Amino acid sequence: MNPVIVIHGGAGAISRAAMSPDKELEYHAALRAILLSGQAVLAQGGSALDAVTTAVVGLEDCPLFNAGRGAVFTSDGTHELDAAIMDGATLRAGAIANVRRVRNPVLLARKVMEESRHVFFVGEGAERFASDHDIALVEPGYFSTPERYAQLLRVQRDNPNAAVLDHDGQAIVAGQQAAPAHPLDMDKKFGTVGAVALDARGNLAAATSTGGITNKQVGRVGDAPVIGAGTYAGNETCAVSATGTGEMYIRMVAAYDIAARMRYGGATLAQAAHAVMFESLASIGGKGGLIAVDGQGNIAMPFNTEGMYRGFARPGQDPVVEIYRA
Amino acid sequence: MNPVIVIHGGAGAISRAAMSPDKELEYHAALRAILLSGQAVLAQGGSALDAVTTAVVGLEDCPLFNAGRGAVFTSDGTHELDAAIMDGATLRAGAIANVRRVRNPVLLARKVMEESRHVFFVGEGAERFASDHDIALVEPGYFSTPERYAQLLRVQRDNPNAAVLDHDGQAIVAGQQAAPAHPLDMDKKFGTVGAVALDARGNLAAATSTGGITNKQVGRVGDAPVIGAGTYAGNETCAVSATGTGEMYIRMVAAYDIAARMRYGGATLAQAAHAVMFESLASIGGKGGLIAVDGQGNIAMPFNTEGMYRGFARPGQDPVVEIYRA
Repeated sequence: MNPVIVIHGGAGAISRAAMSPDKELEYHAALRAILLSGQAVLAQGGSALDAVTTAVVGLEDCPLFNAGRGAVFTSDGTHELDAAIMDGATLRAGAIANVRRVRNPVLLARKVMEESRHVFFVGEGAERFASDHDIALVEPGYFSTPERYAQLLRVQRDNPNAAVLDHDGQAIVAGQQAAPAHPLDMDKKFGTVGAVALDARGNLAAATSTGGITNKQVGRVGDAPVIGAGTYAGNETCAVSATGTGEMYIRMVAAYDIAARMRYGGATLAQAAHAVMFESLASIGGKGGLIAVDGQGNIAMPFNTEGMYRGFARPGQDPVVEIYRA
Repeated sequence: MNPVIVIHGGAGAISRAAMSPDKELEYHAALRAILLSGQAVLAQGGSALDAVTTAVVGLEDCPLFNAGRGAVFTSDGTHELDAAIMDGATLRAGAIANVRRVRNPVLLARKVMEESRHVFFVGEGAERFASDHDIALVEPGYFSTPERYAQLLRVQRDNPNAAVLDHDGQAIVAGQQAAPAHPLDMDKKFGTVGAVALDARGNLAAATSTGGITNKQVGRVGDAPVIGAGTYAGNETCAVSATGTGEMYIRMVAAYDIAARMRYGGATLAQAAHAVMFESLASIGGKGGLIAVDGQGNIAMPFNTEGMYRGFARPGQDPVVEIYRA
């Protein structure tokens, strides 16, 4: 076995030109620290499930990324958070969407997976499940940062009908699912965070968490909590976590499509991930990236945007962090 | 082209012994009338999308089935409705979950598909989208029927921690996702309705709508609105609508898995549908059924319960309605 953890912190039009050296160092340091925390779990013989949970909690708690603290604002100026987790060994899954007060959505998704008769909860029902199961709730203001609020105001000023995928200026305009409008020149990132891992016992796991997209309509759910779209893990094939224009990932069942290409079509992880990113998703204008790992510890981190916050770590080796195209 | 519409009204432990002749006639007549309405759309050159919409509206409006009027009750004594629709020609989709006041959830799902920049809405945000787009809202009492309320009281009396999949006594017990408890001997049906169709232009479509499962926890979302799990359509492969223990259909990405087995594995529709029903879903204790149609007009209606309300109609031929195993 070749244990490994891979993480992403969103993809988008992240250009060297627009990034200050200080900001870049800040992202590097955050991603590295989070990779080290997941790596430590694996190095101590911990499970892939624990490694991805630890990493996604770290990403949620870091205000640089659009999940948990630092989540983007809806058109109402609120936050609505989505997350999912899946255990490749048992194909058990937990998903939650549209929660407003759950400090770490990935911990609620995991609790749903482990302690509920159900797989997927949304809204107040999800929060009720959270309070019944000792999941930390916070006031909605906890998630807010001045940077995200400024982002909302800019988007609403420039194009009130557009929702902007955090980390990118690509706007989705009403009635144009397949053909996003011209990129805006600000707030250029797609924001979702995620992690996939292989542990020493050969088990795979995936987890994804997001605040969605700036100025999204209230009640909108993206691909992150949709098992098979933004999150999937099966020991037979691979574990996948996606980030990007969630609507297209849902329509292409993107995460599971990678597994299916491996399972039925004999593709390698690299071939399958490449095909889904650059053929399937591209065919309907999908933008973003994804991370994936297979049962042998091979990894893939394709994206079709200018950059993706990403990295991986294997026990005993220094973590690798990357932002731009190679 | 060989246009056809296929519908289901739920699967479960529907035994001849437990069904009165009058009730059986009532189900037959309802399914036949709904098939005729979808058949008429196809016979007039209408689209698969219009045919499945018409059929699912009919199923929602009929109190015999667990969708729209006649939806089951949550543990709170409320109704929460989910639906999805997908256009195989464009891979566009619309899905909604956890709505309480939308008379015909499938019409809202279709409106989301056609007029929103988003694909998936839940809760109050979905209802706000509905009222902004002239979708009929009703008082929650509209959905209630005395039969469903009696069903809730029986389930809560006999096993307060169990959620019962309408049309079946199979209970899902907390913490036992993979191993449902013993069947109850009442309220034996899984309740979801759905339709799939092929039209004269070779386009496929699928739609699914449900009230979920009796005594479900508030906020629970099943497979119906999860694209790839309970609903999927792609012209290259097939259109699928599922009914059953939704949690297992989500974990197995059941609907898209049929398409993937055809697309990458070279399976026929019959082979793929059979494998998903009797191998994938069965491997984790999944119970229920599904309907599917491919681009040549071949159909499949597998189920692993005692019965499934189902039928199909081809223009110019008398509709076929079935309830029990052959």
